[in-house]
Amino acid sequence: MRRVHVRKWRRSGVRVIDACTSLLHITMTSPAVAAQSLTPAAVQAAYDLIQPYVHRTPLLTCKTLDAIASTPQTPEALVGTPFEGQSPAHPHFRFFFKCENLQRIGAFKARGAFHALLRLLEERGDEVKQRGVITHSSGNHAQALALAASTLGVPAYIVMPRISTPSKIAGTQSHGAEVIFSGSTSVEREAVVADIQAKTNAILVPPYDHVHIICGQGTTALELEAQHTEQVGSRALDAVITPIGGGGLNSGVATWFSDKSTRVFGAEPTFEGADDCRRGLEAGKRVEAVGTLTIADGLRTPVGLINWEVISNKERVEGVFAVTEEQIKATMRLVLERMKVVVEPSAVVGLAVCLFDENFRRRVEQEGGKEGWDVGVVFSGGNTTVEAISKLFG
Amino acid sequence: MRRVHVRKWRRSGVRVIDACTSLLHITMTSPAVAAQSLTPAAVQAAYDLIQPYVHRTPLLTCKTLDAIASTPQTPEALVGTPFEGQSPAHPHFRFFFKCENLQRIGAFKARGAFHALLRLLEERGDEVKQRGVITHSSGNHAQALALAASTLGVPAYIVMPRISTPSKIAGTQSHGAEVIFSGSTSVEREAVVADIQAKTNAILVPPYDHVHIICGQGTTALELEAQHTEQVGSRALDAVITPIGGGGLNSGVATWFSDKSTRVFGAEPTFEGADDCRRGLEAGKRVEAVGTLTIADGLRTPVGLINWEVISNKERVEGVFAVTEEQIKATMRLVLERMKVVVEPSAVVGLAVCLFDENFRRRVEQEGGKEGWDVGVVFSGGNTTVEAISKLFG
Repeated sequence: MRRVHVRKWRRSGVRVIDACTSLLHITMTSPAVAAQSLTPAAVQAAYDLIQPYVHRTPLLTCKTLDAIASTPQTPEALVGTPFEGQSPAHPHFRFFFKCENLQRIGAFKARGAFHALLRLLEERGDEVKQRGVITHSSGNHAQALALAASTLGVPAYIVMPRISTPSKIAGTQSHGAEVIFSGSTSVEREAVVADIQAKTNAILVPPYDHVHIICGQGTTALELEAQHTEQVGSRALDAVITPIGGGGLNSGVATWFSDKSTRVFGAEPTFEGADDCRRGLEAGKRVEAVGTLTIADGLRTPVGLINWEVISNKERVEGVFAVTEEQIKATMRLVLERMKVVVEPSAVVGLAVCLFDENFRRRVEQEGGKEGWDVGVVFSGGNTTVEAISKLFG
Repeated sequence: MRRVHVRKWRRSGVRVIDACTSLLHITMTSPAVAAQSLTPAAVQAAYDLIQPYVHRTPLLTCKTLDAIASTPQTPEALVGTPFEGQSPAHPHFRFFFKCENLQRIGAFKARGAFHALLRLLEERGDEVKQRGVITHSSGNHAQALALAASTLGVPAYIVMPRISTPSKIAGTQSHGAEVIFSGSTSVEREAVVADIQAKTNAILVPPYDHVHIICGQGTTALELEAQHTEQVGSRALDAVITPIGGGGLNSGVATWFSDKSTRVFGAEPTFEGADDCRRGLEAGKRVEAVGTLTIADGLRTPVGLINWEVISNKERVEGVFAVTEEQIKATMRLVLERMKVVVEPSAVVGLAVCLFDENFRRRVEQEGGKEGWDVGVVFSGGNTTVEAISKLFG
């Protein structure tokens, strides 16, 4: 079996280097070269392709959250933070919440998965339906690829750690994917992927480090901008902020706005070094590995190679900020209780930056003045459970 | 002080009979006569008046919930219920969720409060601004009246039990109302109301048992019907189901649909006799008092007098169904986890009937056939907290 597997790979020209980047290696040479194809036109083309398959999620506003964010923090609230002793900033925010928690499968990942798979089908036709696609993920990308594959008639193999929560396993299976269990480490998961690929010759669809995934996620920005214009007229968005895990969403959004005045920012958790992107920017070098159990479980991965090319380019992303677990929880509480929408912890790190980071707030005060900023905030997903909420707040 | 108080009342022609119905007694003679003024035209007139002050809340759909409700329950799920041993029904539902959890103050109550206050101002002008308005409530009506009063420049006195949750007290105060504390029983609360009225001559605005409140709440149905038409074209809604506490929402909705083909249903909790309306209909006589601590805390009151006139009229409301605490929790979980919107327990009793009551499901199967029913489900409010969610599910 192993021999058949290797022979099949060789014949198809695929060489597995890394389970997360093998699709990349089929079509691209280096991350820097790959990043050159990331243009607003590429995002527009992605949108034209995926539009029939994804929701145009609502862009919501919430005056209560605008008012809270536009009130200076108390000096006491800054005690014990890096901003202790500073005079609190007084920014003015008008938020526009792009609700990808209401996207299909409950997260923006549906955009990238549909786009990657539609491109594969364009490029290779029925071969894809025979070979199928594979990924390993215990999170939203697993369900997204399962949905895209079942919708487009492609077999899907999803490698999930045996310890994944039953609801996520059931969710992935409910979209018709074959779930194969593995151990929890990267090595164990990749071994199972290799084994399944040996048997099926399935094509790997990575979760974030690929131009097709990035352009798919970037369609979030295209819609956000159009909906903002529908709501407020010709005034441009002053800024957009998104979470950064692998960086697919943030680099896609930055790609869309790369020829526009709208500033793009990223947000990460600080917990146990989850702010790898922020730290990498400070050090001038991408951080390659992260080991964190932040409650923002979608943001535990290091930023990808192509994603880093975009995010580390100051012309594309103006800054990355990080927030604590307590700030994430406080923000999640506000969104659930005041705005009445269900978000997962990863989804609120951008809003948490707006509420709590004095450097960011000072910038909005200084550049926005009395008129303030229109800020697009991407709520990346809403896949949580009442048990998880109870565990966070009970 | 007591003497001044009585003299003032007599002068203004007010005689306090019941804290919840005194406004009624100012303008109306009997509930049956009052109910005669409840017409679709009166609801339309209410809408014209309140439209600038309330949100046109979204009408959402959710294919996942349609699919779950359109799947027969398992025979095992019926064990221990009144439907044990029956062959499970197979209805087809297309739900249209009217999200009053996204209404101002987080519940439909804003509609009735604005309408009652705007009518008072129309009828009595500046006198209302001098005297102010008063109510006693620990729930959504308190915040709704506080908001309406502060918006319209009228002083508001809200009598709340001393043991109310701090967030609700703070919420009511944040709308500029003066909160006065009382004991928890009706007698204690009404005594404080009487005392404040003695000092201020404030006009009582009851939470549900008044035609102006009912017509205000009925505007929910007017919007729901228009939005359904916008989404699906000329097909009429087959049914609408709402929670019943005091019955303001349900009787208002039934008033709007009274000259149309859309069937109106009500839903209550069964716990500790909270299904007073359903039991009253069975017995042919309104149940006057209820003592329940159902988790659906907005539905702990008996149905009001005028409300009963509407709801007990088979031409207006075709049936009232009741669900258990476990069914309410299971439904709340589905709405939070699958639909990603935050609802309070009271808000989901209508959907719980659609999911679990075999009598209702059988009716939809028989009358809707293979084509099924378009059902409007009113999510009445979303005022819960992460702590309350933790207590329910932790």
